[in-house]
Amino acid sequence: MSSTYGKNVKISIFGQSHSAAIGVVIDGVPAGFSVDMEKLQSFLDRRAPGRSPYSTPRKEADRPEFLSGLVGNVTCGAPICAVIRNTNTRSQDYDNLRDVPRPGHADYTAHIKYGGHEDVSGGGHFSGRLTAPLCIAGGILLQILQEQGISVKAGIKEIGGSTEDPFGRIEEAARRGDSVGGIIECTVEGLPAGIGGPMFDGIENKVAQAVFSIPAVKGIEFGRGFDAARITGSENNDEYYYDGEQVRTRTNNHGGILGGISSGMPVVFRVAVKPTPSISIEQSSISYSRGENARLAVRGRHDPCIVPRAVPCVEAAAAIAIYDLIKGE
Amino acid sequence: MSSTYGKNVKISIFGQSHSAAIGVVIDGVPAGFSVDMEKLQSFLDRRAPGRSPYSTPRKEADRPEFLSGLVGNVTCGAPICAVIRNTNTRSQDYDNLRDVPRPGHADYTAHIKYGGHEDVSGGGHFSGRLTAPLCIAGGILLQILQEQGISVKAGIKEIGGSTEDPFGRIEEAARRGDSVGGIIECTVEGLPAGIGGPMFDGIENKVAQAVFSIPAVKGIEFGRGFDAARITGSENNDEYYYDGEQVRTRTNNHGGILGGISSGMPVVFRVAVKPTPSISIEQSSISYSRGENARLAVRGRHDPCIVPRAVPCVEAAAAIAIYDLIKGE
Amino acid sequence: MSSTYGKNVKISIFGQSHSAAIGVVIDGVPAGFSVDMEKLQSFLDRRAPGRSPYSTPRKEADRPEFLSGLVGNVTCGAPICAVIRNTNTRSQDYDNLRDVPRPGHADYTAHIKYGGHEDVSGGGHFSGRLTAPLCIAGGILLQILQEQGISVKAGIKEIGGSTEDPFGRIEEAARRGDSVGGIIECTVEGLPAGIGGPMFDGIENKVAQAVFSIPAVKGIEFGRGFDAARITGSENNDEYYYDGEQVRTRTNNHGGILGGISSGMPVVFRVAVKPTPSISIEQSSISYSRGENARLAVRGRHDPCIVPRAVPCVEAAAAIAIYDLIKGE
Amino acid sequence: MSSTYGKNVKISIFGQSHSAAIGVVIDGVPAGFSVDMEKLQSFLDRRAPGRSPYSTPRKEADRPEFLSGLVGNVTCGAPICAVIRNTNTRSQDYDNLRDVPRPGHADYTAHIKYGGHEDVSGGGHFSGRLTAPLCIAGGILLQILQEQGISVKAGIKEIGGSTEDPFGRIEEAARRGDSVGGIIECTVEGLPAGIGGPMFDGIENKVAQAVFSIPAVKGIEFGRGFDAARITGSENNDEYYYDGEQVRTRTNNHGGILGGISSGMPVVFRVAVKPTPSISIEQSSISYSRGENARLAVRGRHDPCIVPRAVPCVEAAAAIAIYDLIKGE
Repeated sequence: MSSTYGKNVKISIFGQSHSAAIGVVIDGVPAGFSVDMEKLQSFLDRRAPGRSPYSTPRKEADRPEFLSGLVGNVTCGAPICAVIRNTNTRSQDYDNLRDVPRPGHADYTAHIKYGGHEDVSGGGHFSGRLTAPLCIAGGILLQILQEQGISVKAGIKEIGGSTEDPFGRIEEAARRGDSVGGIIECTVEGLPAGIGGPMFDGIENKVAQAVFSIPAVKGIEFGRGFDAARITGSENNDEYYYDGEQVRTRTNNHGGILGGISSGMPVVFRVAVKPTPSISIEQSSISYSRGENARLAVRGRHDPCIVPRAVPCVEAAAAIAIYDLIKGE
Repeated sequence: MSSTYGKNVKISIFGQSHSAAIGVVIDGVPAGFSVDMEKLQSFLDRRAPGRSPYSTPRKEADRPEFLSGLVGNVTCGAPICAVIRNTNTRSQDYDNLRDVPRPGHADYTAHIKYGGHEDVSGGGHFSGRLTAPLCIAGGILLQILQEQGISVKAGIKEIGGSTEDPFGRIEEAARRGDSVGGIIECTVEGLPAGIGGPMFDGIENKVAQAVFSIPAVKGIEFGRGFDAARITGSENNDEYYYDGEQVRTRTNNHGGILGGISSGMPVVFRVAVKPTPSISIEQSSISYSRGENARLAVRGRHDPCIVPRAVPCVEAAAAIAIYDLIKGE
Repeated sequence: MSSTYGKNVKISIFGQSHSAAIGVVIDGVPAGFSVDMEKLQSFLDRRAPGRSPYSTPRKEADRPEFLSGLVGNVTCGAPICAVIRNTNTRSQDYDNLRDVPRPGHADYTAHIKYGGHEDVSGGGHFSGRLTAPLCIAGGILLQILQEQGISVKAGIKEIGGSTEDPFGRIEEAARRGDSVGGIIECTVEGLPAGIGGPMFDGIENKVAQAVFSIPAVKGIEFGRGFDAARITGSENNDEYYYDGEQVRTRTNNHGGILGGISSGMPVVFRVAVKPTPSISIEQSSISYSRGENARLAVRGRHDPCIVPRAVPCVEAAAAIAIYDLIKGE
Repeated sequence: MSSTYGKNVKISIFGQSHSAAIGVVIDGVPAGFSVDMEKLQSFLDRRAPGRSPYSTPRKEADRPEFLSGLVGNVTCGAPICAVIRNTNTRSQDYDNLRDVPRPGHADYTAHIKYGGHEDVSGGGHFSGRLTAPLCIAGGILLQILQEQGISVKAGIKEIGGSTEDPFGRIEEAARRGDSVGGIIECTVEGLPAGIGGPMFDGIENKVAQAVFSIPAVKGIEFGRGFDAARITGSENNDEYYYDGEQVRTRTNNHGGILGGISSGMPVVFRVAVKPTPSISIEQSSISYSRGENARLAVRGRHDPCIVPRAVPCVEAAAAIAIYDLIKGE
């Protein structure tokens, strides 16, 4: 089903923005791993709202409670379940959305799919808030990967088209009640050569499947990506050489992946994040009940740009994909 | 495993470039569907080599033999297996590749993964030839989708950076013994609203997982894609309106997908195809046996640009993903 | 992974006997279904401990809290998560088991698998208590099946070898500090003909995979089962006839399944439940720490027979398997 | 889908009794394993028809052709595909079955499921002949397991209710145009402790799912099985002791499995095989076309007992399940 990922580690995410809790079950983490809870909390804090002037003021510490899978802080081999209670919910902000779907959101498509039974409040299961349990799972797996010498680091590459003044673009959009998107780049270092496979379960396939779980992601490219389509083979091919005993390539246009399999060079990919669809500028939409066009200004608390908070989510998604691949070898 | 795809229809691709045959098992096609064999052959011919002055002269009709799953041309509910015999193989062209991996190919990564037991001839299981069985599966599913009023059409958007003279770029590269890549755009029309789901099995996740099975694909973007990261929310949000009883959006920056679920607007995505890595220009590489750097000029028959032949492969991959989603509803 | 089941509905069970909570995530239940909470509670009560003189006196109402997936009592299409808090735990009862594994339990095998990091208390993830979340999932799916006219009913067929005085056998065993097992028969009525499939995902395969999740189950047989191996084809074959327009068989040795597919006759299967391994009679075992043989008398609260409480678990497991099959059609 | 099995090794079986070929794709076999083709052929010969006076005289050597996955006899990491051509088919034997389904066969259930499009000839995809590709996959995995010190051996335990004169029972049934079934016992030795897991993917779950793919299997029990339901806990619990450094149990009522995980003792299970449904004695059935009851005597070539030929199939199914579990550790 849609909210379940993985073969060798199974991630099952649940919750709606305004349900009693959101959370995740992680099945397949090896026994005996000691989770560094402070480090996990720091990781979750990077995603949490209310941490910067640009992010939504809904202030909730994303403090997971572990219901199972740990004895103390040590994994016992049983599935880990962690939940975060939803406390600071203002469902009335969403009352008008029951009838008028927000452009750019999943309100309308969920309405059709679930026949009007979808949980509208706060975007329900489609809320960006559901990236918190993604980050719990990813945060734990990042720690396990790190122990194996593998690091996953993402960063903002550009926002609103600017690489030089990304935060200026956010401020500008915020002032107008508008929003901006951006591009995140992620690098996986320390992954040994030979991980992955051809066809459907290669690194690109798995990472892409995981990363598109983050709402607002609309594109992904590996290595030189779309730009590779514009250069020649002699420019794009990465030549091999021996660096001592180590085989390396002089350039990394392949982004560390050939035939779906890691080459030992850093895995590099970029992700396109669209502008937050919730804006206070009035937009055209429809009214289900009246069967006619309608106008809508989204109220409530919304980030003018979710790119900074999406950075740890990209790391989390990549960690889940990479760990699932490694464990399957 | 890596060469198996799907949940509600299972695609299992097998074969190496120079093994006895290549083929595919398709499990989950409904009984009673009459396969139009001529139409399927025309579809496969679009992918086949030797059809244009720009494609490799290895001339093999990709004529599938159906071993199972059909009674006459009609599906019987049992898994379909179709194979294509490999006849026109020149393994000696690949002898030097046993020791010196081609830059940009999976030779090296497969060598590491399979401990030197990989089938080197013709690229083995990593050969572009393996897109033929992908197209058999996709070609059949395209017919089933068409019967349901759903069309999947891809086309070349640019080659070698040019939208105006793509074939000029191919000729130019061919003259220099070099190669070029390009961008393919694919549109799915007729998909009803409400197909797909949030998180990990939405349309983007599934299509991306399928499309990255095509060797040389290095990026995918949906709707406005990477460009959406550079505009504002008020520009990017697609406003809803009633077109009679039909809900539509005035623009289609969302590419027909919101929250992983179809909106009823055309699903649109673009795919970046890197330049063919096999070029006759001499390149640097390594020699496994000598443990030192080496030079390599790839001999044999190679396309200076595989983008035209990749177009039906993108349609096939999209069809497999979309059909798997529809069947799961 | 081990604690996840299903393709069209995904069941993910978590928790240990003495962790903060046990629970289940159910992904794939259709939106708009109204869960009858009283009925669900009655179903769970059949499994709960402390309800009869023969069951363990650990008295905990198995009252699930729904964290997600419902708006009121109605499913919203998002994954359902339900948890039961563990309150009445006496971990000290299990202290000696850290070193001396109980014969007939998973203590030793878990110890080897998880390298000594397993949660020993109360049997951890291997506890019979984990059938409570199985029953939550099964209880909901039973309600959905019922709405489709499908009933799943199990009952005790024999206990301790006796069909005539099963409860006498339990009393007798209890008096001696011993335990007994038994056989449960389950019947699925109303399943239309044509559900299931050949080979690996037929009804027998799916039901067996689900039912063996219940600790203590050591065998399953469909229709005439093992007895069919002892009669002739002319006795075992069930002859077809028209009952009005309805095709039926005069006997039901096939247990409603041929070629993995339902025939429209009742699906009938029986399950062998071994005697509760926890007995107060002293037994031989080993001491990990001393590396030598040891003696063990299991203290704490244990059922002399779990067969009565396993009856709803068999219904739950069958419901999960049957629903997963039906949804995949 | 129904004809696909496994997570860490994927088995995809295709073919109908009278299609061009039957075969199997095996994805996930490690590279570098040298398949002993003679040994594989001997294994397949144990299943092949026409080898004994009691088996059907359809004489076809089950000689697999390997289309892919091997270089010489050595696995190259790509999926293995092996096919067996169907040559000796007499479809006219099955003409009357298009209208009148055989009691005890899948004719009727397939007819309903596939809406009359099923391949009737020879039982189509439901034919016992489809156990040949199962045995190809199992035969290769048995060789890999053997290299790891794990043996899987099955044998006839009883036929037609007799442990003393099984072949007498077959002769007797054959004389009357009737058939008999039997019980097969399978033992896996050398499996280390700690393989498997709780809940849904334990050894019992996986072996049962695989073994019920063999047509005619109607029951499975592990260790003491159904008999365990009739004894007490003190009798059924297997006491641990140190045999040198090795932990063993004095008895093996648990059949080498506790909590779904191997204990290091031999894994033992028994399988109930029903009598061959094809008998020449006239039986009652129905006529689809006339919509009324009908009589049927099955013509053609049929085994009076398939138990001897099912023995290697049970080994094959067990090998597939066990290998899939081991590879997932």
